[in-house]
Amino acid sequence: MELHPGERIDDLQRNGLRIIQNENGFRFGMDAVLLSDFTSVRPHERIADLGTGTGIIPLLLSQKREDATFEAIEIQPDVADMARRSVQMNGLDSRIHVHAMDMRQAAQALGYESMHAVTCNPPYGKAGGTLTSETESIRVSRHETDITIDEIVQSCSALLKNMGRLTMVFPAQRMLELCDAMRRFRLEPKRIRMVCAKAEKPPYLLMIEAMKNAKPALLWHPPLIVYHPDGSETEEIQRIYHKI
Amino acid sequence: MELHPGERIDDLQRNGLRIIQNENGFRFGMDAVLLSDFTSVRPHERIADLGTGTGIIPLLLSQKREDATFEAIEIQPDVADMARRSVQMNGLDSRIHVHAMDMRQAAQALGYESMHAVTCNPPYGKAGGTLTSETESIRVSRHETDITIDEIVQSCSALLKNMGRLTMVFPAQRMLELCDAMRRFRLEPKRIRMVCAKAEKPPYLLMIEAMKNAKPALLWHPPLIVYHPDGSETEEIQRIYHKI
Repeated sequence: MELHPGERIDDLQRNGLRIIQNENGFRFGMDAVLLSDFTSVRPHERIADLGTGTGIIPLLLSQKREDATFEAIEIQPDVADMARRSVQMNGLDSRIHVHAMDMRQAAQALGYESMHAVTCNPPYGKAGGTLTSETESIRVSRHETDITIDEIVQSCSALLKNMGRLTMVFPAQRMLELCDAMRRFRLEPKRIRMVCAKAEKPPYLLMIEAMKNAKPALLWHPPLIVYHPDGSETEEIQRIYHKI
Repeated sequence: MELHPGERIDDLQRNGLRIIQNENGFRFGMDAVLLSDFTSVRPHERIADLGTGTGIIPLLLSQKREDATFEAIEIQPDVADMARRSVQMNGLDSRIHVHAMDMRQAAQALGYESMHAVTCNPPYGKAGGTLTSETESIRVSRHETDITIDEIVQSCSALLKNMGRLTMVFPAQRMLELCDAMRRFRLEPKRIRMVCAKAEKPPYLLMIEAMKNAKPALLWHPPLIVYHPDGSETEEIQRIYHKI
């Protein structure tokens, strides 16, 4: 397996899965791992991951069911290439297809209403929040400089079949903005889980599942707590990371 | 103090406050006590409570500041009379004024945009959810048979000054419906707190503060947990009930 300068191979602690990350570029975060846990995969589903980065979400989801296939979309060609090499390294080429593509082109390229589910761990920063110390690659991954939340949700909706499911992770303080965007594009929020760093802290993230053309009805999950008061990971986080 | 058949006097465990409740009719619940804790009272404010029932919310809020005054609205004349007698019993007649009135008439009667804050612990049940075993009084208090959530939020908004605050408690699964109604009447959700029966349970209630004509920005509080795993009340619930 060819590695580029700055790249390393990390063990995902799951069925022998490994992933290439770039020490100077964008690496996957806990959010993507939590979203993969939150996302359900059903028999023979075709699932798209928009803004796949390292490919972490389709890699993890591929282990939930052996009969599911994935289209992983990443706008940065070098990052997409890295994700593609991770897929090859795990022998998953036949199930995970990486596309170097703007997500706004995904429905046209892969088919309108062609997916049973879509996942997205989008940039959280609003346009203008760029720190000058960030590399261009990280800037594109973290900020809505080049795409708005409306365009992201619209891209997801265009890919989804009737009653298809979109799962996303997003900052808690932008929940209503996200839900508004979803509803504008016929995606009805159905399941929500808030994430708190500690039990006594406010939620900072939310994971949400919306269903295309569905009726309103919101199911809440228990809050997901990341750390015990002493700073150690909770049992649920250890379970999600397959450490127990 | 005259008591009617079925009525009893309960101690609110706070500054000697007492309240009249009817053993066969509607009594206040934990939701109203939690909402009073969630609601802030600022100097010299005029605050309306819509659907006041026993008057529990203005009674509790009156203890947060001595210079605040309250307009308590209750559609059922006999319940309003019971609340009025509770106010008199506590010597709060000059600060809490009880009105036997449909909340949809409140702005016309008390003044459009006349309130700094409004509180509302509305009926949770959708129209049609009536159990035949309930008394008429409880039915009116618990169900939207006679008023919709849109009409409730509109009544609150009509009373509020620019930048005035509405605090409400509502079922978690109807959060988006409530937020949509608020935004339709120029009330922007600003603060949210979810309530869970136990830490590992999903939230079943939310407390929300919306501000009239404000810009979007949502502040989340830590989840409020009611019971420990062993079924005893958490320290925060004990604090809210002034038991510690």
